[in-house]
Amino acid sequence: MSLTDLNMSVLDAALATDFYELTMAAAYFRSRQSDRIAVFETFIRKLPRNRSYMVAAGLEQVLHYITNLRFNDDQISYLRSIDGLSDAGDDFFEYLRNFRFTGDVWAVAEGTVLFPNEPYIRVEAPLIEAQILETYLLSMMNFQSLIATKASRIVNSARGRDVVEFGSRRAHGPQAAILAARASYIGGCTGTSNALAGRRLGIPVFGTMAHSFVMNYDTEIKAFQEFLKIFPKGFLLVDTYDTLEAVDMIVEEKIQTGGIRLDSGDLYDLSVKSRHILDKAGYKQAKIMASGDLNEYIIEDLVHKDAPIDIFGVGTELATSRDDPAMNGVYKLVAIKSRENDKMRVLYKMKTSPGKKTYPGPKQVYRIVRDNVIFSDIVALENEPASTGSTALLHKYLEQGKIIRKIPSLQESREFHRQQVKLLPPKFMTITSTVESFPVAFSARLERLAQEFKRKQ
Amino acid sequence: MSLTDLNMSVLDAALATDFYELTMAAAYFRSRQSDRIAVFETFIRKLPRNRSYMVAAGLEQVLHYITNLRFNDDQISYLRSIDGLSDAGDDFFEYLRNFRFTGDVWAVAEGTVLFPNEPYIRVEAPLIEAQILETYLLSMMNFQSLIATKASRIVNSARGRDVVEFGSRRAHGPQAAILAARASYIGGCTGTSNALAGRRLGIPVFGTMAHSFVMNYDTEIKAFQEFLKIFPKGFLLVDTYDTLEAVDMIVEEKIQTGGIRLDSGDLYDLSVKSRHILDKAGYKQAKIMASGDLNEYIIEDLVHKDAPIDIFGVGTELATSRDDPAMNGVYKLVAIKSRENDKMRVLYKMKTSPGKKTYPGPKQVYRIVRDNVIFSDIVALENEPASTGSTALLHKYLEQGKIIRKIPSLQESREFHRQQVKLLPPKFMTITSTVESFPVAFSARLERLAQEFKRKQ
Repeated sequence: MSLTDLNMSVLDAALATDFYELTMAAAYFRSRQSDRIAVFETFIRKLPRNRSYMVAAGLEQVLHYITNLRFNDDQISYLRSIDGLSDAGDDFFEYLRNFRFTGDVWAVAEGTVLFPNEPYIRVEAPLIEAQILETYLLSMMNFQSLIATKASRIVNSARGRDVVEFGSRRAHGPQAAILAARASYIGGCTGTSNALAGRRLGIPVFGTMAHSFVMNYDTEIKAFQEFLKIFPKGFLLVDTYDTLEAVDMIVEEKIQTGGIRLDSGDLYDLSVKSRHILDKAGYKQAKIMASGDLNEYIIEDLVHKDAPIDIFGVGTELATSRDDPAMNGVYKLVAIKSRENDKMRVLYKMKTSPGKKTYPGPKQVYRIVRDNVIFSDIVALENEPASTGSTALLHKYLEQGKIIRKIPSLQESREFHRQQVKLLPPKFMTITSTVESFPVAFSARLERLAQEFKRKQ
Repeated sequence: MSLTDLNMSVLDAALATDFYELTMAAAYFRSRQSDRIAVFETFIRKLPRNRSYMVAAGLEQVLHYITNLRFNDDQISYLRSIDGLSDAGDDFFEYLRNFRFTGDVWAVAEGTVLFPNEPYIRVEAPLIEAQILETYLLSMMNFQSLIATKASRIVNSARGRDVVEFGSRRAHGPQAAILAARASYIGGCTGTSNALAGRRLGIPVFGTMAHSFVMNYDTEIKAFQEFLKIFPKGFLLVDTYDTLEAVDMIVEEKIQTGGIRLDSGDLYDLSVKSRHILDKAGYKQAKIMASGDLNEYIIEDLVHKDAPIDIFGVGTELATSRDDPAMNGVYKLVAIKSRENDKMRVLYKMKTSPGKKTYPGPKQVYRIVRDNVIFSDIVALENEPASTGSTALLHKYLEQGKIIRKIPSLQESREFHRQQVKLLPPKFMTITSTVESFPVAFSARLERLAQEFKRKQ
């Protein structure tokens, strides 16, 4: 009996896309649009619920995808077999067989703090090459940015206490689990429970024990003793039967442990009482970890009340961004460049569907920081002069399909994000509502261009 | 420059887990617990918001994982390098190197309709083997069941009109996209936009065109004409500039098309007006597809008002189960079997943490159907006699690590789910609230056992 494996390698990525990217590619190929240069930009129109900023993440995997994207024989045979595409012509499938991405890609660094309508990836490439990146690029950036944003909020609410990502079992499948671990680390988490994230990404891994471990032994105390024999600094899960009785027993039996983990009940009350028992018995070094459906709202409350919790383990709420599980990043055509009589002609493009307006033209984001706080972001056309004292956020990572800029390590991106958060005006740190307005302005030229498009309607 | 690829093959699955599964394995190994037989069960305590039933999905990938789970040298070296585990002993790492799953697995068929507290997977295996499956098994079942459940609701609300899954770009990464496509198909969708799901799973793939396609050409009409040259039955996206003007133009220019897609604005109003324009011009065959942040609530409303929409394309809301993005399936120890003096001794296990009670013992679910409606489910100990006229829901799929039961095709699971939905009492089809009580009872013996555990506390 053969079972279908739905793990996927980078070799599968060519089909890990919306089919329409490939039907459009065929139509472009047939109508000889292939050598026009298209400019696409990725941005969000609106932040997820209660968010006041987003954190860009996922770029490294996007660049890996773009630079490794190939179509193999099996994939091409499959595409030929689909009604509709089967008439696309041998030369189209030959084109796919020789496919390589040859364009340029600009992007903001991972960990950058951003606001709505600010482009964070710009792709400039022959039309088909640029178009077919859309789905994979979006799913990777949308998810990692969603989780980095959620992690950043949770870490901020913990005010310096450690936050560890524990969400693998509720993440949207095994790959989502490792992506969530990566994005959470960029967003400021101390580590993850996911062992593959430890192996592949060097993220510190944490783990205690499950209730089943405690239940397996005839007595709770026996379970603790057996565990500590091998992990002398391990944390003991104390809520399998009765939390405070378990803590009492630990000190009465003089069990030396790294700490305890509370996983149910009133975490404020239990942490205060457990700390009291531990301190009275001289267990000053033993730490308290809390877990169990935690999120930024609950953690803020616990920290506000000064609950003696040293480490927060956050699972479901973090790995699914539970209160709003989608980042609505879009990938929009903003210009077509074509060569006419040896002159480059740039055609600006703009969509005018209700509620879905885009600004036309290839853009750059200039950030002005004053007194160590973001004062203003100015979105301008790529060739407009920079405002005095501003920094451009979009950097060129790929040129003619080759990587030309160093990709920071994950630790560097995490540290970069930590610095970025410090630049946020205080009102952006509120977690229960979004701010009314963002420090984002569009250049006069962009506003004029957008007006012209509207008039033409 | 090397970029980290976070696609993963089945060979990576051994580490795609919470680290604590492996620390517990080491502790079990050292305290000579390895030859005890553990029984774990997976169930949910509570349904996601507004759900009145869940749909089991993901079993095929779980069985693939279990039967292929191995630890390679690289993974073992990594585990040895981690503080804590490094002292677990050479014989433990040798144990991992020779690891094979040798136990038994019972499960309900994919597509089965279930209620809270009904076990849907039961694993009976040597303690370490059973324990380390937990994280991967849960992430796969939780996510696919979450999406199959959401899809079932959406398909029910469409009352026979087609629903196509369009969520790849908002799914939680590329693997989540194909898993969502699979689960949506089991839940009743007609197809998906995900090309890899077409190739790997044989799910029908659908695709139209993006706004960028329309914008690429100098005029909208030119874009439509070029597209239809290759895809004569293709759907035309009509909302890039002005929806009704585009539909008017299609009929004025006598463009022959398979249909149109509405993607923004008031879908009821636009579908009625578009249908009117199309019908008046003799375009009776042209279909109307609608998309754009659709979910079961909006679709129910559109269908109730009899909007002339033939196909619903559902993306973000389906692929992330947006209104509640987590299925809280848990994996709990319910018994330990050990051989003493050649007699098998069964020790029932039960957790008593507040709000986290489990029923002890290895269980079976018996379903009684009367007049083609689910009358009652009885959860009983595995060795209790079945109630008259009932059907057991849990089947044995793995025996001593080998597959012994045919895995249905995806088409068969989809059809099975379609039949399952017909067995639901009508009140379970409401989408805006959950029912107050489920037709689930626990056998007298189970209730007695649970009482005994409580008394012992």
